[in-house]
Amino acid sequence: MSDNSFGKLFNFTSFGESHGPGIGCVVDGVPPNLTLSEADIQPYLDRRKPGQNRFVTQRKEDDIVEILSGVFEGKTTGTPIGLLIRNKDQRSKDYGDIATQFRPGHADYTYQAKYGIRDYRGGGRSSARETAVRVAAGAIADIFLKQALGADFRVKGGVVQIGPHKIDRGNLDWDECDNNPFFCPDATAAVAWETYLDDVRKAGSSAGAILEIVADGIPAGLGQPVYGKLDTEIAAAMMSINAVKGVEIGTGFDLASMDGSHAGDQMHMEDGSPAFDSNHAGGILGGISSGAQIVARVAIKPTSSILTPRKSVDKDGKDVEITTKGRHDPCVGIRGVPVAEAMMTLVLADMLMRHHAQCAILPR
Amino acid sequence: MSDNSFGKLFNFTSFGESHGPGIGCVVDGVPPNLTLSEADIQPYLDRRKPGQNRFVTQRKEDDIVEILSGVFEGKTTGTPIGLLIRNKDQRSKDYGDIATQFRPGHADYTYQAKYGIRDYRGGGRSSARETAVRVAAGAIADIFLKQALGADFRVKGGVVQIGPHKIDRGNLDWDECDNNPFFCPDATAAVAWETYLDDVRKAGSSAGAILEIVADGIPAGLGQPVYGKLDTEIAAAMMSINAVKGVEIGTGFDLASMDGSHAGDQMHMEDGSPAFDSNHAGGILGGISSGAQIVARVAIKPTSSILTPRKSVDKDGKDVEITTKGRHDPCVGIRGVPVAEAMMTLVLADMLMRHHAQCAILPR
Amino acid sequence: MSDNSFGKLFNFTSFGESHGPGIGCVVDGVPPNLTLSEADIQPYLDRRKPGQNRFVTQRKEDDIVEILSGVFEGKTTGTPIGLLIRNKDQRSKDYGDIATQFRPGHADYTYQAKYGIRDYRGGGRSSARETAVRVAAGAIADIFLKQALGADFRVKGGVVQIGPHKIDRGNLDWDECDNNPFFCPDATAAVAWETYLDDVRKAGSSAGAILEIVADGIPAGLGQPVYGKLDTEIAAAMMSINAVKGVEIGTGFDLASMDGSHAGDQMHMEDGSPAFDSNHAGGILGGISSGAQIVARVAIKPTSSILTPRKSVDKDGKDVEITTKGRHDPCVGIRGVPVAEAMMTLVLADMLMRHHAQCAILPR
Amino acid sequence: MSDNSFGKLFNFTSFGESHGPGIGCVVDGVPPNLTLSEADIQPYLDRRKPGQNRFVTQRKEDDIVEILSGVFEGKTTGTPIGLLIRNKDQRSKDYGDIATQFRPGHADYTYQAKYGIRDYRGGGRSSARETAVRVAAGAIADIFLKQALGADFRVKGGVVQIGPHKIDRGNLDWDECDNNPFFCPDATAAVAWETYLDDVRKAGSSAGAILEIVADGIPAGLGQPVYGKLDTEIAAAMMSINAVKGVEIGTGFDLASMDGSHAGDQMHMEDGSPAFDSNHAGGILGGISSGAQIVARVAIKPTSSILTPRKSVDKDGKDVEITTKGRHDPCVGIRGVPVAEAMMTLVLADMLMRHHAQCAILPR
Repeated sequence: MSDNSFGKLFNFTSFGESHGPGIGCVVDGVPPNLTLSEADIQPYLDRRKPGQNRFVTQRKEDDIVEILSGVFEGKTTGTPIGLLIRNKDQRSKDYGDIATQFRPGHADYTYQAKYGIRDYRGGGRSSARETAVRVAAGAIADIFLKQALGADFRVKGGVVQIGPHKIDRGNLDWDECDNNPFFCPDATAAVAWETYLDDVRKAGSSAGAILEIVADGIPAGLGQPVYGKLDTEIAAAMMSINAVKGVEIGTGFDLASMDGSHAGDQMHMEDGSPAFDSNHAGGILGGISSGAQIVARVAIKPTSSILTPRKSVDKDGKDVEITTKGRHDPCVGIRGVPVAEAMMTLVLADMLMRHHAQCAILPR
Repeated sequence: MSDNSFGKLFNFTSFGESHGPGIGCVVDGVPPNLTLSEADIQPYLDRRKPGQNRFVTQRKEDDIVEILSGVFEGKTTGTPIGLLIRNKDQRSKDYGDIATQFRPGHADYTYQAKYGIRDYRGGGRSSARETAVRVAAGAIADIFLKQALGADFRVKGGVVQIGPHKIDRGNLDWDECDNNPFFCPDATAAVAWETYLDDVRKAGSSAGAILEIVADGIPAGLGQPVYGKLDTEIAAAMMSINAVKGVEIGTGFDLASMDGSHAGDQMHMEDGSPAFDSNHAGGILGGISSGAQIVARVAIKPTSSILTPRKSVDKDGKDVEITTKGRHDPCVGIRGVPVAEAMMTLVLADMLMRHHAQCAILPR
Repeated sequence: MSDNSFGKLFNFTSFGESHGPGIGCVVDGVPPNLTLSEADIQPYLDRRKPGQNRFVTQRKEDDIVEILSGVFEGKTTGTPIGLLIRNKDQRSKDYGDIATQFRPGHADYTYQAKYGIRDYRGGGRSSARETAVRVAAGAIADIFLKQALGADFRVKGGVVQIGPHKIDRGNLDWDECDNNPFFCPDATAAVAWETYLDDVRKAGSSAGAILEIVADGIPAGLGQPVYGKLDTEIAAAMMSINAVKGVEIGTGFDLASMDGSHAGDQMHMEDGSPAFDSNHAGGILGGISSGAQIVARVAIKPTSSILTPRKSVDKDGKDVEITTKGRHDPCVGIRGVPVAEAMMTLVLADMLMRHHAQCAILPR
Repeated sequence: MSDNSFGKLFNFTSFGESHGPGIGCVVDGVPPNLTLSEADIQPYLDRRKPGQNRFVTQRKEDDIVEILSGVFEGKTTGTPIGLLIRNKDQRSKDYGDIATQFRPGHADYTYQAKYGIRDYRGGGRSSARETAVRVAAGAIADIFLKQALGADFRVKGGVVQIGPHKIDRGNLDWDECDNNPFFCPDATAAVAWETYLDDVRKAGSSAGAILEIVADGIPAGLGQPVYGKLDTEIAAAMMSINAVKGVEIGTGFDLASMDGSHAGDQMHMEDGSPAFDSNHAGGILGGISSGAQIVARVAIKPTSSILTPRKSVDKDGKDVEITTKGRHDPCVGIRGVPVAEAMMTLVLADMLMRHHAQCAILPR
């Protein structure tokens, strides 16, 4: 029952700091006899890795994953899968100020307050580096769900707003996400964002973002009310990602100002199955999937590390001025996309197993 | 490890349907020797109960709580506290259409899809009736935290937007919440909302809402990164409440469009302690409380039960037109306030114990 | 994650003290559409209840169970099942000495040391009265497993040793257990035990016992290595029962002195399936069921409440002489049989679901 | 909530197979600011490692542990501690028969039945090799408890019976355990055992054992009734160890034949504190520590791998004769001692934190 575990049946337990020997996790509950090798996981990690274009941190990480257990002759065995990613880019350097000062917007102060000690190198445990293991675990979940749910299943995410600039939803095309450096599902917006983000970067500042993650091919019935609801687990999954400050399902916060007569998605029969006229609910009713597309949106704050000097305090209780140097993403939200996809996938894998255990064990 | 449990150390397990014999829960992990009686819990339930004014459902429920265990001679004993609230208002009636048809926006269809059976009376398990036990459990958490954290501790919630109408934050006064039927912290807004909600009710429709819950007197250090973060648990707690479709911490979704130079709360020394110039982070950094006020906002969709006829389908796969009758809240968000307060309190109680176990067991 | 919960998927959370308003539990994870009513549970409780013959306590308890939730029109709905048993026999009396003195062999001293407070009436939470809810929960597990595993499934327990007197294993007949007041599977031994236990009772003393619980019809494959092994969960289940001081699987402690060439059960094909020549392993290898009969044995200490005066201390740190009065079982082990059966059944139900979730979700 | 995790607050999650790339675990919940390095853990591993004398397997393993995270500048940081032990001795060889045949007494058949696949090399996940990570995790628990409980705290284990040969309890001296190859607390018995075990080994057979583990310096009050009792957790911890078939607390199974007037440990005041005249309860009453020495005994079956040919079946459902070759412990019980010590220590560390969280958070 580690606080560094996620999931009840399909679950993983994570460890590792930004600049320690390595990061990794133990993925447990994976069904046996799934085809799995390091080569199957690597492409998921490659989508997330830094240094791919000028809009993400230039830190070079190969993020090579090693499978330590749970796989035999190319198949999962049902035993826990240990995954390890060595930290390569641990250049010895002077962390001087960071060691004693608390960077605004970072977890420096709170880790110090909580533990009375902190690994300040690169943010230590609070670094987004930890999210690489989520992506690796999510890859296994994805491989499992593809086999369990078939060709209709797909989890896909993208950036739908960067700074104040939203996509035009008329242009929304999820396949477009892989064609631009922003995972943006609107090709036109992506062009404009390039200019915007260059400006932000040159100004030594940073931008926030809103991500949208959708899941198709999810059958009705997933979710364990009332404290293991599907949206509850999605909310927890997303909020656990670094820099996330908000989560909404379907129409989300905008539902507050909608009229009740339009908010509830009406139903009709379609090809012999119940279908919805709209999807304000984001595919979840009463905490259980409805068969409609699962839709979650996530707010990510601007990167906290910026070149502008700011006021802060240090360990000795003195006022200081602090400037964070080094290589930073102008918008951490971008690299959050594969992470949010992974977390959505992990939730769905766990939920499918939890549902299956209770509701598919006896014949109907 | 029930899916109907919430919390790791200070935890509760809930049961009960809207129109069954009763609802209740088992609250466990409560420290011994706390003064506790039914009379201490009842006022919390009274704040939530229906039938108090024309803006909430007229269903009459006394919501009388009985303590079944865990208290001896007026003190908690450290053993699990069983709580029971009998359902009084179970008038025998014709549920006819509801038994076979799926109400838009409700969990009727998804429960049927998941379980192959559902208690359709009043929504069964998916009814907001279940939230009464959260309020009862939250009362115990509140009593515990008041003793553990002292006079500075307070969890307070209110409605900050109803339909499209927001409060004027210049008027914000949490003590005002108890003076109007909306738990509205802005006395002026509350007057205008009365007219608005009367119109909604007369139109046979319903309105959504945004709640804000704040916690004061929370020391820096609470939160168990990275999957037991304070904001992760708050997000899960809030999203588990009926009709909630979004959760945000601090400035939340608006952080996405803020400039990085303003988003990170700068720090300074104040009376010998670190303090923050602003609170965009909502009192949480890296998943750990910072000592600033904890701020969460919750989006609640409009009540799904409205008098307007709508399209739906039935169990036999036929298209139908459905109208929900009876007594319903025009805005369920209002009665959500004591529930959201309770969930925030429960998260904080659990987090304090989890922090204490690991970080206060050895002398510093 | 209550410490008063047992089970991961099929699980229950218990509450209640011996002389409080009532005891009960929340059973969760139960598959939907099982036929269930109070009348289905009651026979299991009746087997356990006190006052049935002179060898068990004369405390009169009807142990009438009420289903508070989770059942609709005679079927389980998949939502948590609240169960309540009111305490009837709470005669107001003078607990005088017990309130301040610590009875040898009881939990009086340790509860006081742990919590700084204790409900001393009838042992409070440490009373075997709590086991009634285990039996009720076990009844539901039994109903589930009968449907899931079919006619071959049976959990059966009995007393195989009382004081120093063992059964003759040549006479072992599990059906015999219901024909004598000891749940003894050896009719001849049962006659002799009657005399023995009368003597013990007249001497104001008490006797220990060894129980044996067997499960038939369990398929190979149940158990979640390495910390959720089938024998691990059985050991925990049994050791959690009041007065239990030992648990063994199969040949158990006697395996220590066996030669390795005889200890490992050899295998052969029988009717097209693998079968075992012997069952020293008690049906469990590597923590996973082998298809052979599951066999567990449990040591129960003599009833701690005896009429003989003994030395002890009181809350004020004074030496005292203490005599426990009232109605007590001369051998608590006897009434432990339905409890141990229930715990075995609960473990198996949980294990079947855990196995099903991981290993039966994809086609083989 | 991995099935490969143990512990609620002080917990660890294990992975790895006998002949895969490596084994390891994630230890979480460890208090911050403990002094810890690989050199602190290594001595615990060295006590367990094979190849130290002729009575344990001659497999050469260095069992060098690497700390991957959670430690910074020689101190624990409160974040999860990843531990990795590479498998060195993976000599490529012909597993021929073992790949298709099921060895009696081993988990070969049950893993195959459960998962439909198994890593047969050296027993895969079911190998006792996994216990090395328990010892590593237990080392951290021991370091924590020494700081938390002080000099009186000690967990110590030994072999008290090997095959049919018991120690003379009059000779019992725990410090003696480190002076002979059997962890035997009776120097005289150890000499005799040498002859006995040589004979067993020469005969190509194996012997079982009974271990005893004691813990001193444990304050009264540890244990979370009723499903997180101290003895419950000890029973689960011990039964999860390979080859264990029985667990007892205090006088254990022998309590069944004791008279009630002697079974309950009487109390008296001693130096101003309550003390016990005897310790049949093994330091645990009602699932809570009493302040007396914690005593557990564990039955370990004879090593299943012996040189004698035996009957079995293979994957194709054919009767076969099987002989296990290679290097095996004539008595696996011996190397079980450091493992059982580790598990006891891990239980106590977790229990101390669980108790502290609930019962030491408010001033008494």
